[in-house]
Amino acid sequence: MAKIQTLPGFHDFYPEDLKIRNYLFEVWRRVAHRHGFVEYEAPTVESAELYRRKSGDEILSQLFHFEDKGGREMALRPELTPSLARMASARLRDYRKPLKWFQIGPCFRAERPQKGRRREFIQFNADILGDAGTGADAELAALAIETLREFGFGTDEVVLRLSNRDVWNDFLAEQGISFDRAGEFLTILDKLERDPEGVAAKLATLGTSTDAVREFIARDPDPEGPLGRVLADLEARGLATYVETDLSIVRGLAYYTGTVFEVFDRARALRAVAGGGRYNDLAALVSDGAVDLPAIGFAMGNVVLGDLIDQCAEAKVRLLAWLDERTAAQVYVMIADEASRPHALAVATDLRRAGLRVDLPLSPLKFNKQFQAAEAVGARVGVIIGSEFPAISVKDLHHRREVAATADTLAQTVADILAAPGPLIA
Amino acid sequence: MAKIQTLPGFHDFYPEDLKIRNYLFEVWRRVAHRHGFVEYEAPTVESAELYRRKSGDEILSQLFHFEDKGGREMALRPELTPSLARMASARLRDYRKPLKWFQIGPCFRAERPQKGRRREFIQFNADILGDAGTGADAELAALAIETLREFGFGTDEVVLRLSNRDVWNDFLAEQGISFDRAGEFLTILDKLERDPEGVAAKLATLGTSTDAVREFIARDPDPEGPLGRVLADLEARGLATYVETDLSIVRGLAYYTGTVFEVFDRARALRAVAGGGRYNDLAALVSDGAVDLPAIGFAMGNVVLGDLIDQCAEAKVRLLAWLDERTAAQVYVMIADEASRPHALAVATDLRRAGLRVDLPLSPLKFNKQFQAAEAVGARVGVIIGSEFPAISVKDLHHRREVAATADTLAQTVADILAAPGPLIA
Repeated sequence: MAKIQTLPGFHDFYPEDLKIRNYLFEVWRRVAHRHGFVEYEAPTVESAELYRRKSGDEILSQLFHFEDKGGREMALRPELTPSLARMASARLRDYRKPLKWFQIGPCFRAERPQKGRRREFIQFNADILGDAGTGADAELAALAIETLREFGFGTDEVVLRLSNRDVWNDFLAEQGISFDRAGEFLTILDKLERDPEGVAAKLATLGTSTDAVREFIARDPDPEGPLGRVLADLEARGLATYVETDLSIVRGLAYYTGTVFEVFDRARALRAVAGGGRYNDLAALVSDGAVDLPAIGFAMGNVVLGDLIDQCAEAKVRLLAWLDERTAAQVYVMIADEASRPHALAVATDLRRAGLRVDLPLSPLKFNKQFQAAEAVGARVGVIIGSEFPAISVKDLHHRREVAATADTLAQTVADILAAPGPLIA
Repeated sequence: MAKIQTLPGFHDFYPEDLKIRNYLFEVWRRVAHRHGFVEYEAPTVESAELYRRKSGDEILSQLFHFEDKGGREMALRPELTPSLARMASARLRDYRKPLKWFQIGPCFRAERPQKGRRREFIQFNADILGDAGTGADAELAALAIETLREFGFGTDEVVLRLSNRDVWNDFLAEQGISFDRAGEFLTILDKLERDPEGVAAKLATLGTSTDAVREFIARDPDPEGPLGRVLADLEARGLATYVETDLSIVRGLAYYTGTVFEVFDRARALRAVAGGGRYNDLAALVSDGAVDLPAIGFAMGNVVLGDLIDQCAEAKVRLLAWLDERTAAQVYVMIADEASRPHALAVATDLRRAGLRVDLPLSPLKFNKQFQAAEAVGARVGVIIGSEFPAISVKDLHHRREVAATADTLAQTVADILAAPGPLIA
């Protein structure tokens, strides 16, 4: 029998890693709440048909899928949007529009693991459903930007590239290309940067050229068009410097309708940190036409975001400050002699009920080892319980200062030390 | 094409449900942190071998399992403990003992859905690893009780039934039953309440009787034995009234060694709300003997806990107070005329950056409808932006009171209203 290992592409979050991941979760939630979004949660497992209907049969090879004993074809969700469309469609009449909903949770894909691509990964999704206007587009883009601002990123670090697939209809009209071929054209355009030669050949078969496309991309957006209106809204929010229009962004999937955007690091060294757009037709697809629900959403992953924080001094400072506030314990109750253990247990219980994070030795431990244990859990305060109880000695472990307390004054004495500035923790 | 549905046994958490689930998560995390526990997270998918090694081949029929393209046998985790044993064993040298770790996350079982049993369900697991003493047993039991206390349950509502499998060794010795048959004996004993006749017959084949067993259960525990020491520790913490010794609790699985406990509602109307015990041999099993790591842990689910809260007035009051603090928005920015929208967007952005939950109409909306929208999102404050901007009108929507503000005084004006007592929200 061999030792059992973590499966490839899956990740063990040990406490020091999970703390960082929980920081991302907390910021995502905080900023979404400030924008009036409410959290929902879809099941981890869905009917495989949900993904097949959105993306065709070929999607199944990218999913972990299996059958239950009843022969139902089930899949681990590869993304959150289809579940949202299903849930919102099923109970649309119960909610006032627009719905501003977000979810944070794991998604899965059965692809070969590679750098920055895991088989289980976290997505933060935010969506506005039931409002087809550009004001909703701007609100959603603003949420993406404000989230990154809250992490500490400035306009030198991140940029939101804003586009709109509908604007290309003007181009098709100008170039005399049939609107029936819009989907085909956008799929070609999506490869403009990655495969310029292939794109040039394919554009020629449509009766246009890379030059014509590039000239169109370089034009200023019509201020009365959808792109211009989203830009004006974001400018009113003071976010214009975070945004660039970039019509070359069309996001490959047939799925999108209208506004699309992607958020990148300015240096373009990483993959997109977030991406989204309008998908006004999805609810009809999963509800078999019963529901017509305009929608826009974005997804932000944890992996690229983590890399981005690593590269930005301000973002790192904010993360470290958050981590410093969250040591395993603030207080370590020390037992000077084992006969005092019952008193120590009572004191620890009181301090915990007062809301403090408190640890203590669960088995007999030499007194000097207890100081090491206090340091290991990051405690600022040592509370020493010994034979002189109810007299208690309280130590500021950062300043090596000691004060006397009784059971009655203990909570306040500890609070005073915790409130006083301490040296920076490494 | 039919409408796509939620799979049977899986659950959609709509926002109003997820808020309650997040309340459970927040209390679980808060109390665990106060007790010096740190959070980790195992993958959702593990090697099927991990569960087979702990529970035998028959476990596979209760799991959702599948193969990846490389032929690896994978399973959705049915519980969290095996992953913890794997993770702790793999990096044991990196951590100071004892490890006090908790996880909150979904687990899965491929059984037929029934009342209170879903195919995807949430577990809160807390474990202490690397300390074999009764102090660790008591700390863990105390965490279970303090968690329920924090929800608002008193000694009239919940009871922790404490037992220890090793204590039965004294019984085996007294009755002249070979220790080799201890596992068999405990498996029989586990059915004492559910199948008294079957148990009587089986006990007879071991050369003992139900009467002898019941007489042993009725004895007071030895204060110097493990059970007595755990009780004394819990008494020092002021928790004795939450605890009853009950040797009939042995928890069926062969897996447990030593202390075991289950937490029930006093009325015994529901399944156990939490259960746990020592499992000192599991790390050796998953590490192929490389690691010897004493451990004790418990699991608490969300379903029974939810039912229990529903039955307890104090617990419901606490939940509702928490929910009332978490409306979708605190402030609704109203746009008296569309020409003022840019000002409204700027004001909303400022208030959001000040930390408030703020909503506003994303598309043009009649002024009276905006009051309905404000009420629908639970906003206490209406901030009216119109042609007289930068003069702003601020409304306390609960008391129908209106005050004037400017951009400079707005944040404080809003904060004052939010701090003032409001009528109870239905």
